[in-house]
Amino acid sequence: MRQRPFLALVALVVGAAVVIASPGAAADSGLDPEALRRAAELRDSAHAGSGAYELLRSLTVEAAPRFAGTPGDRAGVEWGLATMRRLGFDEVRAEPVTVPRWVRGDEAGWILDPSLRSVVLAALGGSVGTPDPDLTAEVVAVVDLDELEALPAAAVAGKIVFFTRRMERTREGSGYRPTARARGAGPSAAAAKGAVGMLMRSAGTSTNRIAHTGATRYEEDVPRIPAAALSHPDADVLEARLAMGDPVRFRLRLTSRYLAAAPSANVIGEVRGRERPDEVVLLGCHLDSWDLGEGAQDDGAGCAIVIEAARRIGQLPVRPRRTVRVVLFANEEFGLSGARAYGAAHAADIGNHAIGAESDLGSGRVWQVSSKVASEALPVVDAIATVLAPLGIERGDNEARGGADLRPMRAAGMPVLSLRQDATKYFDVHHTVNDTLAQVDREELDQNVAAYVAAAYLAAEAAADFGPLPPEAGP
Amino acid sequence: MRQRPFLALVALVVGAAVVIASPGAAADSGLDPEALRRAAELRDSAHAGSGAYELLRSLTVEAAPRFAGTPGDRAGVEWGLATMRRLGFDEVRAEPVTVPRWVRGDEAGWILDPSLRSVVLAALGGSVGTPDPDLTAEVVAVVDLDELEALPAAAVAGKIVFFTRRMERTREGSGYRPTARARGAGPSAAAAKGAVGMLMRSAGTSTNRIAHTGATRYEEDVPRIPAAALSHPDADVLEARLAMGDPVRFRLRLTSRYLAAAPSANVIGEVRGRERPDEVVLLGCHLDSWDLGEGAQDDGAGCAIVIEAARRIGQLPVRPRRTVRVVLFANEEFGLSGARAYGAAHAADIGNHAIGAESDLGSGRVWQVSSKVASEALPVVDAIATVLAPLGIERGDNEARGGADLRPMRAAGMPVLSLRQDATKYFDVHHTVNDTLAQVDREELDQNVAAYVAAAYLAAEAAADFGPLPPEAGP
Repeated sequence: MRQRPFLALVALVVGAAVVIASPGAAADSGLDPEALRRAAELRDSAHAGSGAYELLRSLTVEAAPRFAGTPGDRAGVEWGLATMRRLGFDEVRAEPVTVPRWVRGDEAGWILDPSLRSVVLAALGGSVGTPDPDLTAEVVAVVDLDELEALPAAAVAGKIVFFTRRMERTREGSGYRPTARARGAGPSAAAAKGAVGMLMRSAGTSTNRIAHTGATRYEEDVPRIPAAALSHPDADVLEARLAMGDPVRFRLRLTSRYLAAAPSANVIGEVRGRERPDEVVLLGCHLDSWDLGEGAQDDGAGCAIVIEAARRIGQLPVRPRRTVRVVLFANEEFGLSGARAYGAAHAADIGNHAIGAESDLGSGRVWQVSSKVASEALPVVDAIATVLAPLGIERGDNEARGGADLRPMRAAGMPVLSLRQDATKYFDVHHTVNDTLAQVDREELDQNVAAYVAAAYLAAEAAADFGPLPPEAGP
Repeated sequence: MRQRPFLALVALVVGAAVVIASPGAAADSGLDPEALRRAAELRDSAHAGSGAYELLRSLTVEAAPRFAGTPGDRAGVEWGLATMRRLGFDEVRAEPVTVPRWVRGDEAGWILDPSLRSVVLAALGGSVGTPDPDLTAEVVAVVDLDELEALPAAAVAGKIVFFTRRMERTREGSGYRPTARARGAGPSAAAAKGAVGMLMRSAGTSTNRIAHTGATRYEEDVPRIPAAALSHPDADVLEARLAMGDPVRFRLRLTSRYLAAAPSANVIGEVRGRERPDEVVLLGCHLDSWDLGEGAQDDGAGCAIVIEAARRIGQLPVRPRRTVRVVLFANEEFGLSGARAYGAAHAADIGNHAIGAESDLGSGRVWQVSSKVASEALPVVDAIATVLAPLGIERGDNEARGGADLRPMRAAGMPVLSLRQDATKYFDVHHTVNDTLAQVDREELDQNVAAYVAAAYLAAEAAADFGPLPPEAGP
């Protein structure tokens, strides 16, 4: 008796796997051979050389960085509008978004013992500044939040807590979240034990002397303490000096602060569908970047990919059934303002969003396509996967989460497609001054365009619906 | 008749080549088989794993950066004295050197047109600061000094000259000098045509967003204008914006300045020879570094290599004939102060310097051994080359120049040995914040120690003299 439900589950899973893997799946997708042939052509011509790199070059030369609320952000919006108009999108518009405005200011730090050493660091996004002029305190090292939790407050009070966990490099980017946890929650966790400042080893994989920023989140009920990330070589030295046994003091200088909220915009461009123009295949990216680099990988690459993919669909002699809508989201990095604003503005027509996909992991090659669609629509995803396979893309599961900017729409029931990218090199430059065009590989970018143009075309052409999905239980 | 001298020369060259390449050369070197066997043992045991990396780690953790005249420079001197004493050198001493003291101060720059972009730059060593607070001027780009020379003064006056030449990556490091020429001579050449500032694309090979400093030299008869090097990605953007056609202004902020000259020291450690202790095999490196990085590659690596090589010779049951003298030169980077002081202090006993070698190209593998010795001593160099060959080291010519710190002694007739290193990666981090231990490969470092310990042992053991060489014609 106890085994029966388990066996039934196994049968179900195996059955689903057979459906997913079936070579005849394309035949069940409702996509005719002509559509599959056209998708393969779109794939191959983009893969042979697309215009995405030149789009990205113009964005990084003309409008970078594009941090929320800055003149660069506004230049990015203008670039998005002008570029999609120039490329012949059917409708191009800006939808207003209000974004927070945080200013990094000056940032510097010094290890004081046993001798003075200047370090390379980056204030965490949203950090308060240090007391005028500097904060100087002894450093106490912990690997992560768990180790901090285990320390008595007496070991932390009046000190700067230094999180030392080192991010692991993987194709899936799986090392990121465990390391970035301290970035979000570390300052308040440290302050709750009386710490006066927070440092962390950068959540990134390069050993170059470059610091990785990223947003932190203060809790309401504890003091807000200044927080910064050290470059790996500087974290190495701080760890080595602490290992020498004597107390090590650190001096931190941050002049970061908030200004008043500022206007920005989601930039939208559409390639209208021939048969169901009100149904939308949403291709997303975010136009904002951190304030340090050019936002070439994060996320200029994604914007270049989806704009170029949609442009190519727009040039077909026969448009697909549905509209392909490119959304360049505002302010992903510092609070998902654009995603929230889009979700609110389009709450009434989320049902018309046939499916969404976001490119937001730089220019690394797509290696897997996964989905979150109604089970009836899996044959369409299978057909898409079959067309993407020659790009070296494997079929994933039906548990995709999609990009961060799709969260509000996914929560409201929008199906999603996820073209998962190779993250091996992405976290070398993510959120750093070194996120520049020089780190982008043109051929990898073209492989992404090839994947997006074929997948978006087939999703827009498929007669079947991808939903409905039940809305997620909200928090 | 006309052909005869040429043929005679060919015969001479071919004959010399035969001598150099002769497998029997070791037999002519006066080095007995026991000495050759011991050298091979020294080579192999160092190659299997030396202590150089740990020496370098302690230097970079405890005393970095070590820019001339700074507290870090003094910490480096203390480290050198303490380290060689701890390692059991026979005699360890500091010889005083006075060094110039330049302070980088704050440095920042912005491309102003068509939109504001902050850049990553480094003031050139010795640069004057900008007028309080900033210098703002239109940019005029030239590839190199020749192109500047061809411009009329009217095209340059009142502008910032931007040298765009890109350094080539080669094993020999041959791309460096042609690119660094503008670093030394560019500011005065630009000022002579009325320029108010000078920028250059960094003389380095990495595409990372890191700027490479290095010394500039002002001429006496022209105004001193502020000068800085841009990171490659920033130089890319400045070039791209200039290519758009409209004038592009740049704002430069440098607070660099000179302070009073400061005391430093050459640090000397000796392993005394058993038979001719007054004759010296000089192993050099420079202990100072630029102010930006850890000076791990430039030139902590060289110091770790020669200290470790000499230490290993000192632990032999039977010492070689001559003394091995390690010299950690002061202030190579900003005027060769240590080399000049050593040359002056030892002018009377340069004749006792049997031969010198300097390690000053980071940790890249040694790939060639060349020399500048009397022709009678070539068989000893051949014997050294034969012992180094299993390390992948080939035999070079007898036209070696040796390291920069050996210049005064070489000019006075000291023979030199040059263990040429692979420079392919060196100029990725040279003179940057990114010159850290994280960029040093432990196995490459050990290969260097293996080469130095074997070569230095054989040079110290050889009965034959390497000189005399005629002093070079002075400037």
